Amino acid sequence: MSLELSVVVLAAGMGTRMKSALPKVMHKVAGKPMVNHVIDAAAKLDAVKTMVVVGPDMPKLVEAVAPHPTFEQTNRLGTAHAVLAAKDGLLGLTGNVLVLYADSPLFTAETLKRLVDAREEGDHSVAVLGFRPDDPTGYGRLVTDGKTGMLTAIVEDKECDDAQRLINFCNSGVMCFRAEDMIATLEAIDNTNAKGEYYLTDAVEVARNNGKSCVAVEVDEAETLGVNSRPQLAAAEAILQDRLRTNAMNEGATLIDPASVFLSADTKLGRDVIVEPNVVFGPGVTVGDNTVIKAFSHLESCVVGQGADIGPYARLRPGAEIGDGAKVGNFVEIKKAIVEDGAKVNHLSYIGDARVGAKANIGAGTITCNYDGYRKQHTDIGAGAFIGSNSSLVAPVEIGDGAIVGAGSTVTGKIDKDALVLTRAERTEKPGWAAAFRDKMRALTGKK
Amino acid sequence: MSLELSVVVLAAGMGTRMKSALPKVMHKVAGKPMVNHVIDAAAKLDAVKTMVVVGPDMPKLVEAVAPHPTFEQTNRLGTAHAVLAAKDGLLGLTGNVLVLYADSPLFTAETLKRLVDAREEGDHSVAVLGFRPDDPTGYGRLVTDGKTGMLTAIVEDKECDDAQRLINFCNSGVMCFRAEDMIATLEAIDNTNAKGEYYLTDAVEVARNNGKSCVAVEVDEAETLGVNSRPQLAAAEAILQDRLRTNAMNEGATLIDPASVFLSADTKLGRDVIVEPNVVFGPGVTVGDNTVIKAFSHLESCVVGQGADIGPYARLRPGAEIGDGAKVGNFVEIKKAIVEDGAKVNHLSYIGDARVGAKANIGAGTITCNYDGYRKQHTDIGAGAFIGSNSSLVAPVEIGDGAIVGAGSTVTGKIDKDALVLTRAERTEKPGWAAAFRDKMRALTGKK
Amino acid sequence: MSLELSVVVLAAGMGTRMKSALPKVMHKVAGKPMVNHVIDAAAKLDAVKTMVVVGPDMPKLVEAVAPHPTFEQTNRLGTAHAVLAAKDGLLGLTGNVLVLYADSPLFTAETLKRLVDAREEGDHSVAVLGFRPDDPTGYGRLVTDGKTGMLTAIVEDKECDDAQRLINFCNSGVMCFRAEDMIATLEAIDNTNAKGEYYLTDAVEVARNNGKSCVAVEVDEAETLGVNSRPQLAAAEAILQDRLRTNAMNEGATLIDPASVFLSADTKLGRDVIVEPNVVFGPGVTVGDNTVIKAFSHLESCVVGQGADIGPYARLRPGAEIGDGAKVGNFVEIKKAIVEDGAKVNHLSYIGDARVGAKANIGAGTITCNYDGYRKQHTDIGAGAFIGSNSSLVAPVEIGDGAIVGAGSTVTGKIDKDALVLTRAERTEKPGWAAAFRDKMRALTGKK
Repeated sequence: MSLELSVVVLAAGMGTRMKSALPKVMHKVAGKPMVNHVIDAAAKLDAVKTMVVVGPDMPKLVEAVAPHPTFEQTNRLGTAHAVLAAKDGLLGLTGNVLVLYADSPLFTAETLKRLVDAREEGDHSVAVLGFRPDDPTGYGRLVTDGKTGMLTAIVEDKECDDAQRLINFCNSGVMCFRAEDMIATLEAIDNTNAKGEYYLTDAVEVARNNGKSCVAVEVDEAETLGVNSRPQLAAAEAILQDRLRTNAMNEGATLIDPASVFLSADTKLGRDVIVEPNVVFGPGVTVGDNTVIKAFSHLESCVVGQGADIGPYARLRPGAEIGDGAKVGNFVEIKKAIVEDGAKVNHLSYIGDARVGAKANIGAGTITCNYDGYRKQHTDIGAGAFIGSNSSLVAPVEIGDGAIVGAGSTVTGKIDKDALVLTRAERTEKPGWAAAFRDKMRALTGKK
Repeated sequence: MSLELSVVVLAAGMGTRMKSALPKVMHKVAGKPMVNHVIDAAAKLDAVKTMVVVGPDMPKLVEAVAPHPTFEQTNRLGTAHAVLAAKDGLLGLTGNVLVLYADSPLFTAETLKRLVDAREEGDHSVAVLGFRPDDPTGYGRLVTDGKTGMLTAIVEDKECDDAQRLINFCNSGVMCFRAEDMIATLEAIDNTNAKGEYYLTDAVEVARNNGKSCVAVEVDEAETLGVNSRPQLAAAEAILQDRLRTNAMNEGATLIDPASVFLSADTKLGRDVIVEPNVVFGPGVTVGDNTVIKAFSHLESCVVGQGADIGPYARLRPGAEIGDGAKVGNFVEIKKAIVEDGAKVNHLSYIGDARVGAKANIGAGTITCNYDGYRKQHTDIGAGAFIGSNSSLVAPVEIGDGAIVGAGSTVTGKIDKDALVLTRAERTEKPGWAAAFRDKMRALTGKK
Repeated sequence: MSLELSVVVLAAGMGTRMKSALPKVMHKVAGKPMVNHVIDAAAKLDAVKTMVVVGPDMPKLVEAVAPHPTFEQTNRLGTAHAVLAAKDGLLGLTGNVLVLYADSPLFTAETLKRLVDAREEGDHSVAVLGFRPDDPTGYGRLVTDGKTGMLTAIVEDKECDDAQRLINFCNSGVMCFRAEDMIATLEAIDNTNAKGEYYLTDAVEVARNNGKSCVAVEVDEAETLGVNSRPQLAAAEAILQDRLRTNAMNEGATLIDPASVFLSADTKLGRDVIVEPNVVFGPGVTVGDNTVIKAFSHLESCVVGQGADIGPYARLRPGAEIGDGAKVGNFVEIKKAIVEDGAKVNHLSYIGDARVGAKANIGAGTITCNYDGYRKQHTDIGAGAFIGSNSSLVAPVEIGDGAIVGAGSTVTGKIDKDALVLTRAERTEKPGWAAAFRDKMRALTGKK
């Protein structure tokens, strides 16, 4: 690919089958709106300009694709009409123009590059991505010349003659145009068909009538999935997840049950990371070598060091930074907090807006009380400190290196290095009280 | 369907392959015993009478199907014999009598209605549901007349001639009888066969010999699954879950990984509800529009409003009512409690037998101490109240609107509106104690 | 099988495609290193001697297979060369010698026994396990004599003639040798081939040239999976899990969603155990009859009695012993602790190094503070005791039968039978303080 590439993303569809208040193409797969998957694939090809054709009254979509320019297709009169909604953006372009569909998030950059390369190589007017389904019924067929292999027509299923009906090479919809020809070609498409729409597929016929060549490039059917309903959204998610999982394994992570591990497009797992079943990685997670992520853990926008031990049931929220050899155990939530090397937060704790020093030990049931209803405040726990179980650390609080907080304490302010601090009321003991209480309650409730 | 419908459900089977103390048909799929799935399908067709044929010594089954009458089949002498165990219940019926199997929970009401309609339409004596497996080996074949399409015989696999063996239209076992013919037909069936049993399938031959017509209606093979073992029970569960998931998605909910979301037959999800992977919905759950149910959440018999934020790791137990825009976060259990609009219970809390007022904020580690070993008592938290972390609210307790409870407090009784209450012991501080303790322990244990 | 059996396990492979610092065969499936699966299968056949051929510099592998002797293959010159690395161990053996592959963990003892039996029965020199893939391309073909059925050759895919290429009976690699012939046979194999390696498959040709007979035994293709990459490791895990799940169901446990239940090879589930979706069983778990394991539970090296109620979100760690009818609820961690019959630990607790007496009730948020940074100490809770919520039990602590600990207490030492003990500070109440605080904070932060 040596010429410039521009991209038109068609995103105007209503998506009524989604039964959603959200424009269809903003529904997410692998944690990212479908339209952004398509834009990001184009970005990998260094597109110089990406234009998005939107429907009326889709301000959230316009926002989601910013800063890319959007063009509104006011009436939906077919795919060619949709592309021409971006005519002002197409004027004066050179090189290649890819037409992509925001509801088809599975085309890879590699596939799109092959399409663009094929167009460039023969200086074709139009290049089309085709796939070979088991059963081609219902799809437009790509008719190619037996001798030259060139694409001669795209024929809708209903208009196929008997020979064409046997063709199993089908139109995916994705096309690449010679930029200089594109507007003229599209404007020559008419709407003399049953639905009265302007079809992009007719571009091949127009180009051929003008003596120009067209070409078709094959793509794996799995990439062509378009999403019109939520079951199809789930199907697209499954395909993307499989790609991400296989890639993670091939890069050296063990996923014991890949099908139950949910990755984001940007998840980074080091070598010899072991991921147990049922783990969810939201966006922005990096895990270092030799770390184990146990079952039922949930991580988002966080960094985990090497040789760390996470979970089961660990929740790492945005801003968690877990050091090498650190341990975050069950029913523990870490938010916007640094847990330094070798520190342990093993059980039933909430650590938010905090630093836990190296090798500190945080007892079960410890809570950093970081919020007073108005402000989030900071807790600083020194290296080697030991926080007794069920302690409440009312921020702002600063606990010195090596200090100990007694179990069940509520502390605030500052604790000196190596000091012991605790808050504990006198013990009250009432011998026999429990037996008397039971007698009373049995009489009252009739229970034994 | 214009005539009356009665139903006989065969539920007498031992189910020895289940290796269970529970009668086979009481094993659950989608949270409901199989026999009740079958009874409920009949109820959707407005059956006027549903009779259940049980085996000896199955009191729990009799209870599970109440108030429907049961009839005991003392000896198991075949399916026709089983139906005749309900002879007293069949006397005097008019219209249609469906024979269903309590271990086949997947037949839909729509399918059964088609069968009954077909019987009525031609006033046939017997109508049979048939399916077309890839490999018919082992199944009874439905032989139909080439001209009329009428059902002429059901031939057991072993007794098929070469032509019949090629038939792939097979007997599902489900039949609909003309009520007026039924007893006579069944009583005419003999047991002159290898096993010496009375087979319901012989009803077709008997009817035909009496000059009456029979008809066969096709059903998707997936509906015909009968459960004889726990692997088959799991297979039936999987099919039911797929139906429920697809339906939920088509109604406007996003299930990111449908295969890991477990629904109950009565789960109601609003539009644009997003369900993350690994969520379990027990019976009786309703979720409002635009609510997000995050991973690893578990909900039973509860109501969640609109735009709420649930999980991850949220457990909503029976009687939880979560308001619009409320938030229930990780490691939080809510039982028989109202969390009003906009209230937040974000972390590590147990809220039971309680009201949490609108926009109240419940700190991490808060426990409502609702149980004294005998009585469950109530906690009332006013609107806009702020409960500090690790607090214990010993019920009965009443916290006024806008009141604040200090972190780590144990409170009971009443707290006035806008008051601050806390229980906190004096702070004890021993400088250098921790260092001395470590020296002692190192000497004692030899650890560093 | 009446003669002695010895086993050579080939484990020298580098496994570079795993991208791991760990030798390939030490990667685990179903919680156990692959090499140990293979050794354990041999042990089931009462092998008198199991030798492992390792690569250079694999001390962890040598340790993992101890006390079985290991032999180092210094240069990797082919499979026959690898087996001969164990020549010293092969000297003087009688009966059968099986050659197994440590990266092929799915061969069952039953299959291996069939192979050995076949060798013994005809006193063959070599017996080979073969499988029938859909597409044999790439596999060595097992050529058998049309009359006698004896194995006449193993022909590599590349060297097949047209007739041989159509054979779909393929070499799995697993072989059983007549011990007395083995060394001579292997030493007669040469390396005159493209790669210059010594191939074990040539043993058949050598044996035949020496007038000895060989035989092939068929095995299900699924058992033959060899692991060279992490996706294949996951595939092997999936096959093993399916076996374990089906077996657990056939033995009388209900797995509602088998695919989401992870078992270990030694998991023991009683009759009418119900396992909800998303449960992980690590090694060493036994569950008694009629117990329910709810969703999102995680169990390792623990024993659960009959009729117990575990989860959801229960974590039972090594040394947990849960009594009959006991209940361990959500967000509860039990480690090295006995929870006696009928005791309840329902919510948000950590019980470690402890005994919970029969019918005791542990309130939500209770923590056994078992660790002081140096020593793990014991908590003993008597029968029928009632521990109030959010209590911290600082070990060593001994709570008498029937005693009550008030909510929010921190206790240590000894509590008498039937006594009430609590530690609770005076209540401080500041009327209107909360309203004033909010006014101040609103002014300060600008929030409402």
